[in-house]
Amino acid sequence: MNILLLNGPNLNLLGDREPDIYGATTLTDIERTLAHRAAEQGAELAAFQTNHEGEAIERIHAARGEADAIIINPAAWTHTSIALLDALKAFEGPVVEVHLSNVHQRESFRHHSYVSKRADGVIAGLGAYGYAAALDFVVQRLSGAAFP
Amino acid sequence: MNILLLNGPNLNLLGDREPDIYGATTLTDIERTLAHRAAEQGAELAAFQTNHEGEAIERIHAARGEADAIIINPAAWTHTSIALLDALKAFEGPVVEVHLSNVHQRESFRHHSYVSKRADGVIAGLGAYGYAAALDFVVQRLSGAAFP
Amino acid sequence: MNILLLNGPNLNLLGDREPDIYGATTLTDIERTLAHRAAEQGAELAAFQTNHEGEAIERIHAARGEADAIIINPAAWTHTSIALLDALKAFEGPVVEVHLSNVHQRESFRHHSYVSKRADGVIAGLGAYGYAAALDFVVQRLSGAAFP
Amino acid sequence: MNILLLNGPNLNLLGDREPDIYGATTLTDIERTLAHRAAEQGAELAAFQTNHEGEAIERIHAARGEADAIIINPAAWTHTSIALLDALKAFEGPVVEVHLSNVHQRESFRHHSYVSKRADGVIAGLGAYGYAAALDFVVQRLSGAAFP
Amino acid sequence: MNILLLNGPNLNLLGDREPDIYGATTLTDIERTLAHRAAEQGAELAAFQTNHEGEAIERIHAARGEADAIIINPAAWTHTSIALLDALKAFEGPVVEVHLSNVHQRESFRHHSYVSKRADGVIAGLGAYGYAAALDFVVQRLSGAAFP
Amino acid sequence: MNILLLNGPNLNLLGDREPDIYGATTLTDIERTLAHRAAEQGAELAAFQTNHEGEAIERIHAARGEADAIIINPAAWTHTSIALLDALKAFEGPVVEVHLSNVHQRESFRHHSYVSKRADGVIAGLGAYGYAAALDFVVQRLSGAAFP
Amino acid sequence: MNILLLNGPNLNLLGDREPDIYGATTLTDIERTLAHRAAEQGAELAAFQTNHEGEAIERIHAARGEADAIIINPAAWTHTSIALLDALKAFEGPVVEVHLSNVHQRESFRHHSYVSKRADGVIAGLGAYGYAAALDFVVQRLSGAAFP
Amino acid sequence: MNILLLNGPNLNLLGDREPDIYGATTLTDIERTLAHRAAEQGAELAAFQTNHEGEAIERIHAARGEADAIIINPAAWTHTSIALLDALKAFEGPVVEVHLSNVHQRESFRHHSYVSKRADGVIAGLGAYGYAAALDFVVQRLSGAAFP
Amino acid sequence: MNILLLNGPNLNLLGDREPDIYGATTLTDIERTLAHRAAEQGAELAAFQTNHEGEAIERIHAARGEADAIIINPAAWTHTSIALLDALKAFEGPVVEVHLSNVHQRESFRHHSYVSKRADGVIAGLGAYGYAAALDFVVQRLSGAAFP
Amino acid sequence: MNILLLNGPNLNLLGDREPDIYGATTLTDIERTLAHRAAEQGAELAAFQTNHEGEAIERIHAARGEADAIIINPAAWTHTSIALLDALKAFEGPVVEVHLSNVHQRESFRHHSYVSKRADGVIAGLGAYGYAAALDFVVQRLSGAAFP
Amino acid sequence: MNILLLNGPNLNLLGDREPDIYGATTLTDIERTLAHRAAEQGAELAAFQTNHEGEAIERIHAARGEADAIIINPAAWTHTSIALLDALKAFEGPVVEVHLSNVHQRESFRHHSYVSKRADGVIAGLGAYGYAAALDFVVQRLSGAAFP
Amino acid sequence: MNILLLNGPNLNLLGDREPDIYGATTLTDIERTLAHRAAEQGAELAAFQTNHEGEAIERIHAARGEADAIIINPAAWTHTSIALLDALKAFEGPVVEVHLSNVHQRESFRHHSYVSKRADGVIAGLGAYGYAAALDFVVQRLSGAAFP
Repeated sequence: MNILLLNGPNLNLLGDREPDIYGATTLTDIERTLAHRAAEQGAELAAFQTNHEGEAIERIHAARGEADAIIINPAAWTHTSIALLDALKAFEGPVVEVHLSNVHQRESFRHHSYVSKRADGVIAGLGAYGYAAALDFVVQRLSGAAFP
Repeated sequence: MNILLLNGPNLNLLGDREPDIYGATTLTDIERTLAHRAAEQGAELAAFQTNHEGEAIERIHAARGEADAIIINPAAWTHTSIALLDALKAFEGPVVEVHLSNVHQRESFRHHSYVSKRADGVIAGLGAYGYAAALDFVVQRLSGAAFP
Repeated sequence: MNILLLNGPNLNLLGDREPDIYGATTLTDIERTLAHRAAEQGAELAAFQTNHEGEAIERIHAARGEADAIIINPAAWTHTSIALLDALKAFEGPVVEVHLSNVHQRESFRHHSYVSKRADGVIAGLGAYGYAAALDFVVQRLSGAAFP
Repeated sequence: MNILLLNGPNLNLLGDREPDIYGATTLTDIERTLAHRAAEQGAELAAFQTNHEGEAIERIHAARGEADAIIINPAAWTHTSIALLDALKAFEGPVVEVHLSNVHQRESFRHHSYVSKRADGVIAGLGAYGYAAALDFVVQRLSGAAFP
Repeated sequence: MNILLLNGPNLNLLGDREPDIYGATTLTDIERTLAHRAAEQGAELAAFQTNHEGEAIERIHAARGEADAIIINPAAWTHTSIALLDALKAFEGPVVEVHLSNVHQRESFRHHSYVSKRADGVIAGLGAYGYAAALDFVVQRLSGAAFP
Repeated sequence: MNILLLNGPNLNLLGDREPDIYGATTLTDIERTLAHRAAEQGAELAAFQTNHEGEAIERIHAARGEADAIIINPAAWTHTSIALLDALKAFEGPVVEVHLSNVHQRESFRHHSYVSKRADGVIAGLGAYGYAAALDFVVQRLSGAAFP
Repeated sequence: MNILLLNGPNLNLLGDREPDIYGATTLTDIERTLAHRAAEQGAELAAFQTNHEGEAIERIHAARGEADAIIINPAAWTHTSIALLDALKAFEGPVVEVHLSNVHQRESFRHHSYVSKRADGVIAGLGAYGYAAALDFVVQRLSGAAFP
Repeated sequence: MNILLLNGPNLNLLGDREPDIYGATTLTDIERTLAHRAAEQGAELAAFQTNHEGEAIERIHAARGEADAIIINPAAWTHTSIALLDALKAFEGPVVEVHLSNVHQRESFRHHSYVSKRADGVIAGLGAYGYAAALDFVVQRLSGAAFP
Repeated sequence: MNILLLNGPNLNLLGDREPDIYGATTLTDIERTLAHRAAEQGAELAAFQTNHEGEAIERIHAARGEADAIIINPAAWTHTSIALLDALKAFEGPVVEVHLSNVHQRESFRHHSYVSKRADGVIAGLGAYGYAAALDFVVQRLSGAAFP
Repeated sequence: MNILLLNGPNLNLLGDREPDIYGATTLTDIERTLAHRAAEQGAELAAFQTNHEGEAIERIHAARGEADAIIINPAAWTHTSIALLDALKAFEGPVVEVHLSNVHQRESFRHHSYVSKRADGVIAGLGAYGYAAALDFVVQRLSGAAFP
Repeated sequence: MNILLLNGPNLNLLGDREPDIYGATTLTDIERTLAHRAAEQGAELAAFQTNHEGEAIERIHAARGEADAIIINPAAWTHTSIALLDALKAFEGPVVEVHLSNVHQRESFRHHSYVSKRADGVIAGLGAYGYAAALDFVVQRLSGAAFP
Repeated sequence: MNILLLNGPNLNLLGDREPDIYGATTLTDIERTLAHRAAEQGAELAAFQTNHEGEAIERIHAARGEADAIIINPAAWTHTSIALLDALKAFEGPVVEVHLSNVHQRESFRHHSYVSKRADGVIAGLGAYGYAAALDFVVQRLSGAAFP
């Protein structure tokens, strides 16, 4: 079972940029912890961060036939990228959209998501724990496990 | 550690109403499983469902000084009840808003949430697992546990 | 053949409140006449009025497996209650929405109906006769009668 | 007692065009049945269908001083023709607007009606029975009959 | 000097329809008075009223090379007919748009005019005198007369 | 002279909930002071608070023929309840709408009021004194007293 | 018979400012010609131009009991001044609003007029002739003359 | 204790203009009665009315360091003057906005207030009594008196 | 293989009206060239132009069972006629919508098309060549030819 | 004669992604067929696909002075990229915008195009044939050929 | 070389009003420093502040033929005064609009500027330095100096 | 003191693309002149232009800890890139947004800026001089110099 963890623009600054909104954990911390948690459940996690929309699109293309699920934090692209939405629509496994902060309490232009039109589930405001919940969900969904 | 699980209108029909959207698990199944999962983590879960907005408001009032966190699926009230939002603003512990389906893929009048203006986190589209993730999150948050 | 007649908030004042808009017939008159008209066509009519949204929802829940059709005048809830819409979506028989006045000629906030998204038919502005037309329609529909 | 039944554009295709939305009954069937039902109640029904807005307007002009009531299915003009609304405002008897399907469940541009600003009553979604209900209503209204 | 006076839908009822809005003068009165006033200024007035948009368009086409100016009361088409606007754009002489009532004090859907995008001048609310003012204006404009 | 003081959802928490917005006075304090002030002016004040919209509606129905005026703080229902507006329209005496805070400086969804469409007067932002001003106003209005 | 001619901001530059939009005639030319035309019809015209909204308001106040009609070109205030509208509502005689250019073909913020909500008639795009037409109209209206 | 009473455009006509909306009391009556009521409570009231926005702004500037509170009826400027709002933001004492009529029941362009963004309290629809309530409120607020 | 070429209002003026937008080719030129091009591909082209919406609707009705495809330039009706859309929905073969100019670069009211909701393809801005491309497309589609 | 064929994001998946919307032909098929068709008409076609907006912009920059026309399918960037529009504005030859599907029948956020503000022509819904029509059009336009 | 520096309403309070937004420098400081900086570059600066829109308009009228450029901080009128825009359109030299704060980060009603429709340049958020930059720019522009 | 000058998409064409809007100076000219002007004031200017949003984001990331201020002309990204805004929010020094043309006079989609939500100052319409003013401002701000 292979899972792609895809993080969008500016998330490489995590733990550094606006810590009162996003927390002090770095992206590397999160990727390492998540990979470990995945391994414990018999899954393999591939992590990828990019500030280039084209790279994100092509990473999703590559995931077709390679990954079983995608966990994505599209950051600012959430609200502007129809191209990312189209790429995700070409992927067939479960997709979970994660936001560290509760985007509904921020500027109104962060309230609308193109990615949600494709994502199976959406998690916002749970901080880094949101990635863990997304991981557990897709593992369960893929393994056909019943409700917790 | 006491946690209130509050479910809004029509959720008593769960497992019965529109099963292709909401799944076949009943609300009693969910409440029982959640209570068990809470107990395993040393917490106590009080479950309450109502179709009466006034009862929901008063249950939240009662939770002040009694519960440490609230997990709420406000169902249709999500989009229409400012009174519920005001009641939640009078509660001081963490609040997590849960939706079984991905509301962003349904009718546009289900895209806006008054409750999100108060909730710390929002989970949508993970089915019944969403309640479990919310539970784990509030237990961690309340126990001051570090990122998973 | 069982039919539920459900009237929403303030309709208990019918014949009394704003008679130039709603007419002088009381709700009891209407319920009695309708029950009689139903009986003549071999159907039984159960009438219920409430000013409590939660009661309306639960009356609709109870109608599942009990009533064959619902005739509903949701009054002010028409425009504000998604919870009522959700309850009606859990009912499988025909639903007809009735308004005494022509709501399209009143304030603009009365032009939109959540209930119409589920109702099979909508009747407005025919006064108390609107209930009779709704009744005849559901009886015909349920009995499989051809076009009048 | 003379009643004008006026049907708008494309309704000459009824029974043929999109039968899953509009049913298999033809317009001629409806006109014949309605005329018969009118006769039974001592009224005379003149039926007219046109795809030309100018003809519809002039038929309404002619109805002044000739017909006692108008039953109109304005079809697509419902949403676009202010000229039709103005013509109907020059007619003094009761006007009932009928739609075969529940327009509120179709495209959003079919939700607004200019004709409703003049019509006394509006019926939608009752199929061909809607015409019969409109007929019974205007006969009662014109004969001063009390509530059914 | 030839001038076309073109009146749109329902204006044939003038003096009869909603007299408190439109006055008691009939269209024939207006046409006759205007023709006389035109003759006094050495101009010839051709008057045409139609309830058919296609006829109005073709009358404007015919006016190209035949009439020197157009005075038009487009009535309800003012707000809905882009085809009329396009026809007027193919005419090269002065165009004056006349409304008997002050449309800005009526329903909001009567506040927008497609015809104004082509008309040189617009007169509203002066009653039948509006036609006379339009006539005097185009005669002056065409005869190159200086400001009154 | 009988006056009904009606307070809506969450106002039972007054003095406790968000004291920086609503102040530290409790609802019981306000009701007692108001009753006393009414008595001084020869009027009787009946106070009622509810978190159930249905109860508010029925309390207003009961006030018909019983109370001479209503002072209402509809709280969150201000912005969402057409049913409350309809109930107030069935009451014939003066109605004053009171808000403790200046709602126009809070979230934009608190700027619109359905109740204002029926209320004779509206007072916002004067804190608990707003109730006193409303009381004095209705006593004067009812006693036909001239301007202060 | 006294008529007030009131011109708003920047119109003192007429004949000078943007002559391709407003023409080369100066305001003094217009005022002189109009006064003469009024005299010929037995009326007296008082002309006033101001760039100060307060002065315009007070000139309208003074016109109450002094002038029989007002011809006003509110220029930029057309679109922004509710105070001017309120002043005009306190005047009882006929009011005609004049615009030199066809405002409907200019920027969209020039399409809405507060003054039109009070004006009896509106004339736009007839250049300086518009004032003459307004004058003739009010003289006729005041003298009770029949249609031209 | 000094209080400034500031009235905006057209209010000098009070008692005269549209008496069915604004009542028959004149502004001088109100100013005199208010001054007396202020004196009784040991305060001094300075009254000022202007139709010139610039004068209103400068009167507010002068009130800084001179007056302890401002009672303002901005009339038409309520809805259009950001400059007035900015002037009031430079004043530090309490500000109460008063409207004689219930603006929420009039044209929709009277529903929005720039002044409310600064005012501590807003009173509408209580007629001339609204000024008295505003006066009592600011005297209490300034003297630190407890709830009525 | 029969193809209907249907041109809407004002297109009879082609080559004459606004030649800088629409070009100098006349409609007769286009119809003749198209008929020839159709013949070369073994198809027959019937051309029809009308300024009457009712005639267009009825021509489309007649095309059912007679024509295999429709090429339509609805001109101004593109943006206003739901009746035309409804007529086209009753036709089962391929429909291509053609505009001579690039409507997206003209006034914003020309950006929306009702006809596009039914058309299989839309071509704009290619001038008269657009008709040829539409013709080639429908011939290929009907003959089941592979990609060019 | 050199023509650039530029395809935007996700189009490399053509023939694979959502075949019921976009068909089964691959992008390589299209590019090869188009190049052949161009050669037959004496033109040379350079094909380029990218998922990186910056590369698309720079390819357009490079086309200045190198290509005579551009055929572009901007895919998702159609609706979001002003930068692409700006790049195209710096290119002087003809530009044709092609969409495989009829975008006007898909989600509403696909109805608006920034590229159309620069494109000479727009073709949508003709499938892969749309590219061929675009090619023929630009060859004709560049060779100055008369209407087909 | 003469330059007019025009400051709008409430700017006389600069250095005093809301110093955290506008800074502590007074308007006199700015005017003196600017005049000196102008003199150094061989230009003369005339400074004018007013709270009266009419005075601002007339000062701009006077600047025609007298000043070579205008530097204007329209303050609150930026967002509301079309009359000011019209006055500036009658001035032919360069106009630079200056705002002390970054208006785009304040209330949304401060995001739109009528003055920007005429101004050659706009500077916001640079504090008092913005005036200096505007001065240097107009001196360079007027003296035909090349880019710095 | 290090300053980053960042130019967005299509600006490499400066002096070449649409010279009537953007002028004839090339980007290299501007970068060289700015670097010189910076050196004169003891600052170092690093210039960077890119058509790839990802590169712009990463250049801003790199500027953290390296540059003291950023001068940015985001070109088309101004209006669409929330990712750029987020990157700038992670930078702590002063940011000035520069536009060569007055964007407020161009298409309406160029009126809104995401970058302004972070920028300290905004300069538009001053041509290449805008960069110089931005440079002087940040040097002053960073050196703590008082107002010019």
